[in-house]
Amino acid sequence: MRLRKIKNAKEKLTEFAGLVLFDPNQYKDKWQEEFKNNNPIHLEIGMGKGQFIARQAELNPKINFIGLEIEDSIILRAARKISTQSLSNLRLINYNALNLNELFKEKSVSKIYLNFSDPWPKTRHEKRRLTSDDFLNLYKKVLVEDGIIEMKTDNRKLFEYSILKFNEHGFKFLDLNLNLHEVENPEIITTEYEDKFKSLNQTIYYVQVKI
Amino acid sequence: MRLRKIKNAKEKLTEFAGLVLFDPNQYKDKWQEEFKNNNPIHLEIGMGKGQFIARQAELNPKINFIGLEIEDSIILRAARKISTQSLSNLRLINYNALNLNELFKEKSVSKIYLNFSDPWPKTRHEKRRLTSDDFLNLYKKVLVEDGIIEMKTDNRKLFEYSILKFNEHGFKFLDLNLNLHEVENPEIITTEYEDKFKSLNQTIYYVQVKI
Repeated sequence: MRLRKIKNAKEKLTEFAGLVLFDPNQYKDKWQEEFKNNNPIHLEIGMGKGQFIARQAELNPKINFIGLEIEDSIILRAARKISTQSLSNLRLINYNALNLNELFKEKSVSKIYLNFSDPWPKTRHEKRRLTSDDFLNLYKKVLVEDGIIEMKTDNRKLFEYSILKFNEHGFKFLDLNLNLHEVENPEIITTEYEDKFKSLNQTIYYVQVKI
Repeated sequence: MRLRKIKNAKEKLTEFAGLVLFDPNQYKDKWQEEFKNNNPIHLEIGMGKGQFIARQAELNPKINFIGLEIEDSIILRAARKISTQSLSNLRLINYNALNLNELFKEKSVSKIYLNFSDPWPKTRHEKRRLTSDDFLNLYKKVLVEDGIIEMKTDNRKLFEYSILKFNEHGFKFLDLNLNLHEVENPEIITTEYEDKFKSLNQTIYYVQVKI
């Protein structure tokens, strides 16, 4: 999601300490301490403006949610919006998911959400796609046994690529929907992007896989 | 494809002996004898009116094509059309694919085509879908090592079901296209159905998997 950059976003983020975590690699062995419980961890990589993860956290108080976002301006917008809700089971981190194994121990994440990730259509950028080999190998490390990945996208090529990659990496497909919003389903928690695409009647693809 | 039944279709089929095979289970060990060569066998299950398999046979003289169709009226229409082309590498059989292991030895078929198969949408008819467990187990028996299945359909639900089933059965996905005719590609060999759907701008799904 391309948005206007906010000046000194990193500095402004510090206002939201508590919701936003800094020096994130210190938490690798301390997530239970940080959340003060032993609940499962669900991770959204590329949380954007945060509507999806905030709603998830609100609806599922027995799950700890962590949202990663690589762009500081975007996570700042999310923090500004979400901070009013004081959700004790949600943390946001300005983080590059390439370093995921610095953030989590092996087999410590129960579910990963990939929502409307950047498609990186050019072959020379393939490694940056969040379902490329390197990322899938990272996910396999940090996910628990029977850990789940859920992916939604409007980008057909990224979705086709991801289906091939999930299959190649031995993931088991649990659910697949090639037109998620064909029928109105109020139980589906949407992202900001998704609401826009829905209103334009664009096809949204969905897949859920298990390690 | 629902078409008007032709009276005495089975009897009329005998006019096309040579192209159409009768008493098919006698060929199980004799396909090389029948085709008078050792070329790979490609099979279309549910060949309908035959445009696809006839065109394939015409373009690929070094491959032996066998088309199965369960409805006698439909295979008769195909035979009437195709017989004028005298394709020595094509045979048609009025056959129920449930008995596939009576028709072929283990590891003897190189490729299986499933084009616009009946979706059998009701759960109680699941077993009749050509990508249900029983059929996939049959395909795994008769396909050679590295044998391929290619599937095309306009039916989203059947396609989603099939992707899950192929994955569950350990097939490797080689290619996937969730809008096959978005870009005009004269190299794609179409069925009669497909031409109709293309002209209506309906989405055609495509997948190629390897055993």
